Amino acid sequence: MNEFFPEVTKIDYQGSDSKDPLSFKHYNPNEKVLGKTMAEHLRFAVCYWHTFKGLGDDPFGGPSIIRNYNASNDPMQVAKDTMHAAFEFFTKLGVNFWCFHDRDIAPEADNLAETNKKLDEMVALAKKLQDDTGVKLLWGTTNAFSHRRFTAGASTNPSPAIFAYAASQVKKAMEITHELGGQGYVFWGGREGYSTLLNTDMKRELDHMGLFMNLAVDHKKKIGFQGDLFIEPKPKEPTKHQYDFDAGNCVAFLQKYGLTDHFKLNIEANHATLAGHTFQHELEYAVANDMLGSVDANRGDMLLGWDTDQFATNLYDSTLAMYTIIKGGGFTSGGLNFDAKLRRESVDPIDLFHAHIGAMDCFARGLKIAEKMIADGRLEQKLKQRYSGWDSGFGAETEAGKVDFEKLEQYTIENGEPELRSGRQEMLENILNEYIC
Amino acid sequence: MNEFFPEVTKIDYQGSDSKDPLSFKHYNPNEKVLGKTMAEHLRFAVCYWHTFKGLGDDPFGGPSIIRNYNASNDPMQVAKDTMHAAFEFFTKLGVNFWCFHDRDIAPEADNLAETNKKLDEMVALAKKLQDDTGVKLLWGTTNAFSHRRFTAGASTNPSPAIFAYAASQVKKAMEITHELGGQGYVFWGGREGYSTLLNTDMKRELDHMGLFMNLAVDHKKKIGFQGDLFIEPKPKEPTKHQYDFDAGNCVAFLQKYGLTDHFKLNIEANHATLAGHTFQHELEYAVANDMLGSVDANRGDMLLGWDTDQFATNLYDSTLAMYTIIKGGGFTSGGLNFDAKLRRESVDPIDLFHAHIGAMDCFARGLKIAEKMIADGRLEQKLKQRYSGWDSGFGAETEAGKVDFEKLEQYTIENGEPELRSGRQEMLENILNEYIC
Amino acid sequence: MNEFFPEVTKIDYQGSDSKDPLSFKHYNPNEKVLGKTMAEHLRFAVCYWHTFKGLGDDPFGGPSIIRNYNASNDPMQVAKDTMHAAFEFFTKLGVNFWCFHDRDIAPEADNLAETNKKLDEMVALAKKLQDDTGVKLLWGTTNAFSHRRFTAGASTNPSPAIFAYAASQVKKAMEITHELGGQGYVFWGGREGYSTLLNTDMKRELDHMGLFMNLAVDHKKKIGFQGDLFIEPKPKEPTKHQYDFDAGNCVAFLQKYGLTDHFKLNIEANHATLAGHTFQHELEYAVANDMLGSVDANRGDMLLGWDTDQFATNLYDSTLAMYTIIKGGGFTSGGLNFDAKLRRESVDPIDLFHAHIGAMDCFARGLKIAEKMIADGRLEQKLKQRYSGWDSGFGAETEAGKVDFEKLEQYTIENGEPELRSGRQEMLENILNEYIC
Amino acid sequence: MNEFFPEVTKIDYQGSDSKDPLSFKHYNPNEKVLGKTMAEHLRFAVCYWHTFKGLGDDPFGGPSIIRNYNASNDPMQVAKDTMHAAFEFFTKLGVNFWCFHDRDIAPEADNLAETNKKLDEMVALAKKLQDDTGVKLLWGTTNAFSHRRFTAGASTNPSPAIFAYAASQVKKAMEITHELGGQGYVFWGGREGYSTLLNTDMKRELDHMGLFMNLAVDHKKKIGFQGDLFIEPKPKEPTKHQYDFDAGNCVAFLQKYGLTDHFKLNIEANHATLAGHTFQHELEYAVANDMLGSVDANRGDMLLGWDTDQFATNLYDSTLAMYTIIKGGGFTSGGLNFDAKLRRESVDPIDLFHAHIGAMDCFARGLKIAEKMIADGRLEQKLKQRYSGWDSGFGAETEAGKVDFEKLEQYTIENGEPELRSGRQEMLENILNEYIC
Repeated sequence: MNEFFPEVTKIDYQGSDSKDPLSFKHYNPNEKVLGKTMAEHLRFAVCYWHTFKGLGDDPFGGPSIIRNYNASNDPMQVAKDTMHAAFEFFTKLGVNFWCFHDRDIAPEADNLAETNKKLDEMVALAKKLQDDTGVKLLWGTTNAFSHRRFTAGASTNPSPAIFAYAASQVKKAMEITHELGGQGYVFWGGREGYSTLLNTDMKRELDHMGLFMNLAVDHKKKIGFQGDLFIEPKPKEPTKHQYDFDAGNCVAFLQKYGLTDHFKLNIEANHATLAGHTFQHELEYAVANDMLGSVDANRGDMLLGWDTDQFATNLYDSTLAMYTIIKGGGFTSGGLNFDAKLRRESVDPIDLFHAHIGAMDCFARGLKIAEKMIADGRLEQKLKQRYSGWDSGFGAETEAGKVDFEKLEQYTIENGEPELRSGRQEMLENILNEYIC
Repeated sequence: MNEFFPEVTKIDYQGSDSKDPLSFKHYNPNEKVLGKTMAEHLRFAVCYWHTFKGLGDDPFGGPSIIRNYNASNDPMQVAKDTMHAAFEFFTKLGVNFWCFHDRDIAPEADNLAETNKKLDEMVALAKKLQDDTGVKLLWGTTNAFSHRRFTAGASTNPSPAIFAYAASQVKKAMEITHELGGQGYVFWGGREGYSTLLNTDMKRELDHMGLFMNLAVDHKKKIGFQGDLFIEPKPKEPTKHQYDFDAGNCVAFLQKYGLTDHFKLNIEANHATLAGHTFQHELEYAVANDMLGSVDANRGDMLLGWDTDQFATNLYDSTLAMYTIIKGGGFTSGGLNFDAKLRRESVDPIDLFHAHIGAMDCFARGLKIAEKMIADGRLEQKLKQRYSGWDSGFGAETEAGKVDFEKLEQYTIENGEPELRSGRQEMLENILNEYIC
Repeated sequence: MNEFFPEVTKIDYQGSDSKDPLSFKHYNPNEKVLGKTMAEHLRFAVCYWHTFKGLGDDPFGGPSIIRNYNASNDPMQVAKDTMHAAFEFFTKLGVNFWCFHDRDIAPEADNLAETNKKLDEMVALAKKLQDDTGVKLLWGTTNAFSHRRFTAGASTNPSPAIFAYAASQVKKAMEITHELGGQGYVFWGGREGYSTLLNTDMKRELDHMGLFMNLAVDHKKKIGFQGDLFIEPKPKEPTKHQYDFDAGNCVAFLQKYGLTDHFKLNIEANHATLAGHTFQHELEYAVANDMLGSVDANRGDMLLGWDTDQFATNLYDSTLAMYTIIKGGGFTSGGLNFDAKLRRESVDPIDLFHAHIGAMDCFARGLKIAEKMIADGRLEQKLKQRYSGWDSGFGAETEAGKVDFEKLEQYTIENGEPELRSGRQEMLENILNEYIC
Repeated sequence: MNEFFPEVTKIDYQGSDSKDPLSFKHYNPNEKVLGKTMAEHLRFAVCYWHTFKGLGDDPFGGPSIIRNYNASNDPMQVAKDTMHAAFEFFTKLGVNFWCFHDRDIAPEADNLAETNKKLDEMVALAKKLQDDTGVKLLWGTTNAFSHRRFTAGASTNPSPAIFAYAASQVKKAMEITHELGGQGYVFWGGREGYSTLLNTDMKRELDHMGLFMNLAVDHKKKIGFQGDLFIEPKPKEPTKHQYDFDAGNCVAFLQKYGLTDHFKLNIEANHATLAGHTFQHELEYAVANDMLGSVDANRGDMLLGWDTDQFATNLYDSTLAMYTIIKGGGFTSGGLNFDAKLRRESVDPIDLFHAHIGAMDCFARGLKIAEKMIADGRLEQKLKQRYSGWDSGFGAETEAGKVDFEKLEQYTIENGEPELRSGRQEMLENILNEYIC
């Protein structure tokens, strides 16, 4: 067996940038935080698509990155070498989970049956490597957006044949996810949306997507897959409008089509900001609706209007995310998947290690800061106090719905002008800053 | 009785810009279009707040506009003069509807009971002027966001006393809307949102808002108000995040709190674009969810990140809006309300006429172009054709849900690679351009 | 010789969408407008990269478009077939100009010398086809951004060897542009910018870019190229920050490095809006600084944050652009280059015709509307009147600089509060709308 | 003399939020950092407009904040009480500088002469309080945008009388700034821009602004004012387009009108991000052009499209700003002015203290982290190394301009494909994160 990342044997590597040892400074998988290990809280996953299949290309240029596992001319050999490289990377990095699309791990063949055969071969290899290494599958998914057949969408395609094709892919992808012990299955809306309303029947497309998801639920039951189904909000790109615009739009859809019992949300940081929300907002909204499932832990550039999928390094974001996630009960089947890619200029294998280590440290620090915040309790206490009027007396009665507009008017007339109290935002932001350091 | 707009006696005014006669070039209220008069289709309404109470101030400067009806030192005299000016304006302009907030038409007094008395006095005057002129109330609403007591929200305020105060205002506002024969009642979320999540209990606030709306439904029934309730999406401003972010978020909220039978949406063009959607998108989404109620017909500036509330002049927008509205069944209780304000530089009364005439002509042209599009049927036919695979055979069976993933896979394996057909976006855009002219 | 677009023999094609004949409805090259033919005013150019080399791929999927001229396995045969297809397309469409990057027309070989040989072969073919058809080269440019060597920029690359490589490419590209009788040469900043300031010496990079441009001016003189040099503003994408952010930033750069006599601007509509400006703004700014050279005539999607490069179809934009261009003196060496691409869904050759015809008609209508606006003179007269205070007396003296702050203060004290006059924006927008139809 | 902030006697106040003592945790004015005291490096200034005149109003509501110094009915008494409150605040907070607009400190009277008299009275009081407290004036400016006369701009107004009025105000404001020993004078473009190009002669307006600035330079010399002139970039708001869009546009303007020797830039964080730049970018650009003068130290909300003017609390921003400022030579006449306002909900006087303390601590930490970064030298060394190819041999010769395109081509042909080296962005971001903590 070749080694594909010979530069790194263990994480305290000392390489070309010798003053910058490649080591975790904050993440310790076995360290206990709030009653669990860091590994149990964070459930880090490496994504197959960006980390192994991404080569730095963008709309203005081809690949900038050259990887040794792509050397063969035989697509299946490339697939196998890539899989070995992947598990070597997971192991050297020390993560417990991975995520993939069907088409990441095996090439497409001339027809679906042949494609599925190749896929099965690769799944068998993945299973073996999972067993060998102990690395587990966080979730699987299908790629129903890259091939030209899905140019106008998958389940929302104007053509029923393409709807059927997408269903066939999801069927298989659910089955192999099940086979690999995946803890969840993700639906990212790929091209489920539109480029122009001039050629789009929105209602019909949404109905088809609702039908598709219900058929997926049926199939999940049929095959006995116990994992969770996740839907992943994104507002735009590649289409002008993606139906799964944000958490709110997804919840509206799931409610309308009777799917709330079967789906949770997979919140991505960069998708949140593209939709005009903070990452924390989407997490809070998911928690408030009992819908938080898993997280794509990356970051966007707030000045750029596309999905930059950068590795998370912002401590404010990781802190507030972990604070919200833990207050929301923490992960069960989900985890933190690094749906992030190297910058085009970061052409060396070692950059992959720097990137993941930085993001893992960033969330490890976020977790520890969140621990401090929770232990200290100041923010929580101030929050409770701000709403304490609702905890007893008139407030509690009102909250319980034992009022009507007439009673409320009577209360107002009797009690006069209500008091206005400061929201203390600046003080709270200062407190957060003290936690951050 | 004074005349407040002596510059204009009839709409074909010839004034200081004498080559620019003030006349409708496209809007003719009595002209028949698609079986109804233009007035019946468009149901134009003038809004009280911007048109009469707005004086050009912005965050960087005080009022630029001086109006004669504000001359008195007595607030009630100003209120009365303004009301007379308003009905003079409605009449001279030739619109059939108006809209208002409670606090637009009467000043606030020392306490709620006194405030309501002043309000009653003004409502009586409004009723008389409605009777005198035949102008009707499209919808009423309350202003529960300008007064400092609502700084942290109304129904989502951390203080139950402020929740109660807001309820008292809505109660009264619903009653006077009923008294004035209003065809609807609008909820715009004012400050229902947050400035920072650090001091916000989102779940509790949303629950309170859900309760509030349910109490409003109860009160509506109690007083026998037959009009519709509308909720108006807006993503941000004044708060960092408004809970009624967009149509999708509103629908999620309404479903969760059991309100879908009682509410429809009031879609505003400028709010749509602030949320990252086109105006047409929000209309289509509302139609697809059977939720289109009424429209705030203005426009934003696509390069500015705040609610510029400009008068609609873009023919693409008005055409696609009218096309969508008419295909969606047209207005019943709703209409086109000009929630729009003069630019700060437009300091003359005559500018108010130019602005409204331009917007009315813009929608009148939009309506006529939509009529052409519907009569011609080309776009509709191409749309139907694009989805025609679903109308029979395998597609129809699938759409009816008589399939499962296994059958769909079998179909795919048997039928091979589906055909990819052009979406013809460029051709459709050209066709639209031909209609526009 | 094969025919590559057999679907279209002449522009009044009647094809699969038979109710939509493929014909110009507004553009007539020989029609006289304001003293010149439409062809002379508009100087339309087809771009080689999007129109022939673009195949619908995006960051989420590979090519969706299949073209017959790409059938060969030999890259030079593909290059030749593409060139024939291009001139066939130019001729069938009836445009007088084309634009290209060096790497569009010939494949890159193992080294620069070999690459240049292949390029020469293709230039010879292009020259022949130009002679055969009468189609001319509007401008040429180099692609110094797609190859991985330019990942960190060309003239602003941290490596002098890559600076040199870029210079070698520009040298050759200027020479072949000269050889083909190009009327201009464009610099689009490709990757001249940065991904992060953490690894960027902005001052040094800007100095290098200034040097590079000065060397280009020297080489232009040396080879006797008489065409204009154009610099093309773009704010971001592919880099996080492009140094040629907008027209203002380009003018600052050109002034600082002593280049204003040798460069003009190539304004692109989509780049304008990505920078937070309207298309018209960038044109006006260029005119105000005597820097308008040429135009990339496309459009962006105002709700999307990347360069969508759509075909221009918005009549407001084309009207205001042509109005500004003509008031600024019209094109000399520049023209309207369609730097625009088909949507990924528009997979048929016929879509290319629809797209270009729509854009050409759009600008033809814009030109005719601008003609009406200029003939009528109302807008111009109102503008002049607004500033008429500066044309005589105190205003003229002030404008001539014959004042100081003391005199101005004295004037103010003597004359008291100045009059505030309406900007009449709403009326002017209505007038524009009347011209549009 | 009343005390206006009795809540705070010294900064280690223990108040209603008793677990949150009001004290600096990082800022110590006398602590030495890189050879100067923190106070000398940071030169903090409190702004008069937001801090004392701002009362929480926004476009959707009137004032939420009630201050005791506004209690009087006499505007001059309010002005005096406010001035006393301001110096009490400066002193209690421990800042060395303040900034103001003419109209902040004295009310406008019936005519300019009367207004100037009132202003003189307030300037005398300010001078006395400066002497009493040792607090100095960082810079002064004029407010030529709030009064309705400036609705269409000041120096770019279509009316010469308003140009003259603005000049009269700037004249006086420069004189009182001089009188108060101000270290600089700022031009923020207020309404220098346009709402619509339909009524705007951009070239003429820019020429007028160029003239105005030259007259200001003349007046500065005449009165012997030794301070610097600063121009402050802002892209939009209140106008649709502000001429001083960003640093690049300002530099273009200053170069064109021969003003580069007399002006430097006042960079505001929130204006940077509204223009699509990072705060650090604008600082770097100013340094690269030898134009960094002073800083408005606030922050925007990256998801909101208006000037939120929040107090700086982001450690990444303050670190990178201080790193850039110090590498650029540090402040001479400029400083860090808190052009920031309380959130509307922060209605208590104590919130003003929290806000300023948080921002001062944020920049103090930024300074200390920058000190670490500079002392450690890793980032600087990596940067130097990245460009080291330019320091000798072929690179140095090229940088010195001793080449032409032919020599560069020859080099390329001889040396073949250049090496592509990783930009190491992810590693650098990780290093930054380690400094941050």
